[in-house]
Amino acid sequence: MAERYFCAIKPFGIVSQVVGIYALVMQIIDGKQVAEKVLSECSDRIAALKEKGVTPGLAVVLVGEDPASKVYVGSKARKCVELGIYSRKIELPADSSQEEVMAVVEELNNDDKVHGILVQSPPPPHIDEEAIVRAINPAKDVDGFHPENVAKLALEDPTGFVPCTPAGCMRLLKEAGVETSGAEAVVIGRSMIVGKPMALLLMGKAGNATVTVAHSRTKDLAEVCRRADIIVAAIGKPEFVTADMVKDGATIIDVGINRVEDASKKSGYKLVGDVAYDECAPKCKAITPVPGGVGPMTIAMLMQNTVQAAEATL
Amino acid sequence: MAERYFCAIKPFGIVSQVVGIYALVMQIIDGKQVAEKVLSECSDRIAALKEKGVTPGLAVVLVGEDPASKVYVGSKARKCVELGIYSRKIELPADSSQEEVMAVVEELNNDDKVHGILVQSPPPPHIDEEAIVRAINPAKDVDGFHPENVAKLALEDPTGFVPCTPAGCMRLLKEAGVETSGAEAVVIGRSMIVGKPMALLLMGKAGNATVTVAHSRTKDLAEVCRRADIIVAAIGKPEFVTADMVKDGATIIDVGINRVEDASKKSGYKLVGDVAYDECAPKCKAITPVPGGVGPMTIAMLMQNTVQAAEATL
Repeated sequence: MAERYFCAIKPFGIVSQVVGIYALVMQIIDGKQVAEKVLSECSDRIAALKEKGVTPGLAVVLVGEDPASKVYVGSKARKCVELGIYSRKIELPADSSQEEVMAVVEELNNDDKVHGILVQSPPPPHIDEEAIVRAINPAKDVDGFHPENVAKLALEDPTGFVPCTPAGCMRLLKEAGVETSGAEAVVIGRSMIVGKPMALLLMGKAGNATVTVAHSRTKDLAEVCRRADIIVAAIGKPEFVTADMVKDGATIIDVGINRVEDASKKSGYKLVGDVAYDECAPKCKAITPVPGGVGPMTIAMLMQNTVQAAEATL
Repeated sequence: MAERYFCAIKPFGIVSQVVGIYALVMQIIDGKQVAEKVLSECSDRIAALKEKGVTPGLAVVLVGEDPASKVYVGSKARKCVELGIYSRKIELPADSSQEEVMAVVEELNNDDKVHGILVQSPPPPHIDEEAIVRAINPAKDVDGFHPENVAKLALEDPTGFVPCTPAGCMRLLKEAGVETSGAEAVVIGRSMIVGKPMALLLMGKAGNATVTVAHSRTKDLAEVCRRADIIVAAIGKPEFVTADMVKDGATIIDVGINRVEDASKKSGYKLVGDVAYDECAPKCKAITPVPGGVGPMTIAMLMQNTVQAAEATL
């Protein structure tokens, strides 16, 4: 179904498509392609850094054996190698103590070859994740979760690190040519990983959007969403946003990645977003697919943050 | 005109009033009375602190001769004395250097008798105010402007200091019996002093409201405001919010304090809020007047933050 509307982003352009009985100009925002663009910019900046004798370095710490986390950590390390970023992967047993994890963070804080440090979330339940995040040198906190970077985001201080997923969403909007200034944006979800930073980015001077943050306690969420020129869905519920919640001509950024059972697939499951894509897409001006939308951007923005961290040491 | 609708807040109660041809239950939120309640709670906590040998202390630093700032600093010091808070007022000449102001902050950071430090805003233009704020020990930053406290607000960490004005607005809503959970709230203004922290408080677990932040770039602000069950006006424009922007039965918190010329007054001016009170009040379920609404709360919350800072040292 998704393929029916497929089109690539062209610089400054959109590909039109006749959908149903409405002649809509509908754009599928190709996250892979935008991510490639970001990574290609990173390559240029890495080359410039290397000319100055600096090789950016990223350390990823994994505590335990969570299979999904292993996959994420593996892709991050591989992407580093592809780009010529020095990559350290530190795998700690699931029963590591808080002190052992802290000691690793401290060692990485003091390692000049490492410009970015990331402790893969979630750690085992006995680990105090917040304390670990606070222990990371804010100048190496490429995830953007340290309080100092949270504050810089709220204060619109560009020297901070913006969390990768909302940063990626902003870039997708920009590359898709979606005007945020003056637009009505509805962010569904109020987490510090996506919802709140996304709202701060959209409402700040860079976005200039009129932002509503909706969440589980919102009354008549459908009505709130129907006002939106831009919907950012980050609720973690499969296909939660349905067509009746979408205004004609809206742009949808779907942050959700949910596994749902699918007997027709060899793996037994398929990935769907927080948005019921097939029914919403025909109403949209632009929409991100899942997979291939926000997903590829997150890792690309992590690479970009690592490059930014290395540049700041010059 | 304002007096026509005057009514006091009663515990858990509202005073009804027939306004115009609509039988509305209209409440004027009496900021003075709520502030008295906050200050009386402070008194109890101060007495308990003194029993443990701790006298809360607040140091207020004033750089230069700005007349309005002098008035504010004077009232803060007086309120401290009234409550039995140790008060230090440090007045520096307008041509003080950045280093001189920083040295004073450093001295206050190290003074065990001082639990709260406030550098009156705005300092003279040659002073880097942000650097001064960052230099204050976050545990003494009773204004709540230090990045560490900004982050704690965003992260909903209750150990931080919430900026006084938005904290006061939240308390007014609570005392007026206005349900924020599930309510549509529109905050007009996106400053880090009021707009953004207010939005974060309302959207967090304490407020649970569906929050929209509107600002100078918002298209059709009237339409956005008309959705609101709660309007918080913090734009700094006299009588900006007019009756056509207000839904029947809305609650309005007016943060603005603007001087406008008034030949009928001896002083030649009168104080008005960001809301056209006389025309909006009849449509409201509850509204704060100016003066006597948010104003008295700001200083009360400063006292409360100072008490909190002292308690945290126990």
